[in-house]
Amino acid sequence: TLGHFPQSFQYASIGGFAVTRSSGQSSAGYGRFDSLVVGLTVATPQGTLQLGNSPANAAGPDLRELIMGSEGAFGVVTAVRVRVRPLPQVKTYEGWRWASFAEGAAAMRTLAQAGMLPTVLRLSDENETAINLAKPAEVGGESAGGCLMITGYEGTPEAVEAKKAAVTALLAGLGGENQGPDSGQAWSDGRFHGPYLRDSLLDVGVLVETMETVTFWSNLDHVYTAVKDALVGALGEATLVLCHISHVYETGASLYFTVATKAADEPLPQWDVAKQAASAAMVRNGASITHHHAVGQDHKPWLAEEIGPVGVQMLRAVKAEIDPTGVLNPGVLIP
Amino acid sequence: TLGHFPQSFQYASIGGFAVTRSSGQSSAGYGRFDSLVVGLTVATPQGTLQLGNSPANAAGPDLRELIMGSEGAFGVVTAVRVRVRPLPQVKTYEGWRWASFAEGAAAMRTLAQAGMLPTVLRLSDENETAINLAKPAEVGGESAGGCLMITGYEGTPEAVEAKKAAVTALLAGLGGENQGPDSGQAWSDGRFHGPYLRDSLLDVGVLVETMETVTFWSNLDHVYTAVKDALVGALGEATLVLCHISHVYETGASLYFTVATKAADEPLPQWDVAKQAASAAMVRNGASITHHHAVGQDHKPWLAEEIGPVGVQMLRAVKAEIDPTGVLNPGVLIP
Repeated sequence: TLGHFPQSFQYASIGGFAVTRSSGQSSAGYGRFDSLVVGLTVATPQGTLQLGNSPANAAGPDLRELIMGSEGAFGVVTAVRVRVRPLPQVKTYEGWRWASFAEGAAAMRTLAQAGMLPTVLRLSDENETAINLAKPAEVGGESAGGCLMITGYEGTPEAVEAKKAAVTALLAGLGGENQGPDSGQAWSDGRFHGPYLRDSLLDVGVLVETMETVTFWSNLDHVYTAVKDALVGALGEATLVLCHISHVYETGASLYFTVATKAADEPLPQWDVAKQAASAAMVRNGASITHHHAVGQDHKPWLAEEIGPVGVQMLRAVKAEIDPTGVLNPGVLIP
Repeated sequence: TLGHFPQSFQYASIGGFAVTRSSGQSSAGYGRFDSLVVGLTVATPQGTLQLGNSPANAAGPDLRELIMGSEGAFGVVTAVRVRVRPLPQVKTYEGWRWASFAEGAAAMRTLAQAGMLPTVLRLSDENETAINLAKPAEVGGESAGGCLMITGYEGTPEAVEAKKAAVTALLAGLGGENQGPDSGQAWSDGRFHGPYLRDSLLDVGVLVETMETVTFWSNLDHVYTAVKDALVGALGEATLVLCHISHVYETGASLYFTVATKAADEPLPQWDVAKQAASAAMVRNGASITHHHAVGQDHKPWLAEEIGPVGVQMLRAVKAEIDPTGVLNPGVLIP
């Protein structure tokens, strides 16, 4: 298996995964999509580009990393060679309860830096945990409060057993409360449903949107607070901001926000103000404009600030050289 | 600790590690240098480039990967932010004997794909194993034949114990013979001595040089044979070619060759012929011209073949944009 299961899985393509630097729900175990790519074939107006003769080498800059994230601006990806792993024989999910988001995040950091990551690892903040518990099927099923973490293990029975034992010992030692398999399985069952909710909620007058970012561990709590404050500042006190961490690294983690507020008569400009405020909070507090949603049109105005004028010059130079007449995905990526 | 210990350690600089994509002797445990870099500050003729706001993101191409391997052609790296780990409390090395290079390599592949890599992992082929045993201090100390693998474990006592037990079980199950700590410690004691031997040997009429490459596991044996044949073809039957694998990945591994032959009256042109033949064997058999020695002048003639004409156009476009008057390391990298 490739092990790449983003929420867009039901509609996405493999070339799209590459040029958008997608990251899936099992990234803790399998890695982000860009880390799974070993080779790319790219059709460009200048001819075909064949990249990736080895896992890694020292033959100059890694041009695969220039194509990944390019969103079609430098060429059309016609083939992707990827790293696959054996199909897991066992999949098992569990829930853990933490007293606070900060304590849960610290536990994730410990796991990542100990090289002890489960296949799936995510942590909901207090608000997101409360909302999930409010689902009719689960009311009264578990004690309220705190933050829910999901741990998922996939692999051979022996590997799953060993990893689960080691992770369980670490998490219990850090103050986590094991909730058993029920909440883990509930997450797994509903993992692809989220994106379908937005339009139904808009129909009943609730504006729901999502956004995400990534930063280093030392900056995580700061960015979490700054983005929440920006969203509430733009949308009003009655706005509900939920957040989870679902992609972790030794050096940092992503933050994924879900925002719900009363829809204005014109929800598009309402959201635009909030999106601008939150994006500014990310970039100006040293985080990235996007962890895995790519640049597209929403984030394009912020890319120049993120990579700086010299970075923009580099992208423009490659674009001008490879696609001088601008036939490839016009208007995309290049600030 | 950064955990980056290439043989050049006694003379190298941290910016040099980045722009040459260095890889150290503990890469199995700590990773290649480019995988340890989280941020770079680069002074260019167009201004300062600040890269790396997060472990990974989806904000377009990863420009860090354009600076790494650039050998100073796009700017001067003035700061590198790197991932560090706790200093290991325990370091322990062991030797394992394999009946053949192919069996030892297959065992390395199993370890890499099981996520069970020691901190140090290297395997000498039959020739290199025989030469090492021929060292005066060790003659008669061990049975001859086969291939020597070194496994090294670093970390907390518990982590080392757990990893060593798991690796030992896997290797023993695959037919490896545990040789205990002596040959492992001998390797560790002499790990920085190799490069100093070349000039002494030239003085006594022996030409000794090294070269390295990297490819996918499925192509490894083919490239190993092709490069050996090319070297013997160029230098004559009396040439001794030694090889080891010292950097492994889930998808492939490096091959590091040491060549010894009788020096001609003019050893430089003698070596040049051999280097050309071996380089052609690498690139034309789908391997990279270099795993961690970088491009420099030796490999520059081969870079265009490795990255293709469109890849060359990309590098030239960035160079022309960032350094239009060519003041940065003239003549380097760009084919």
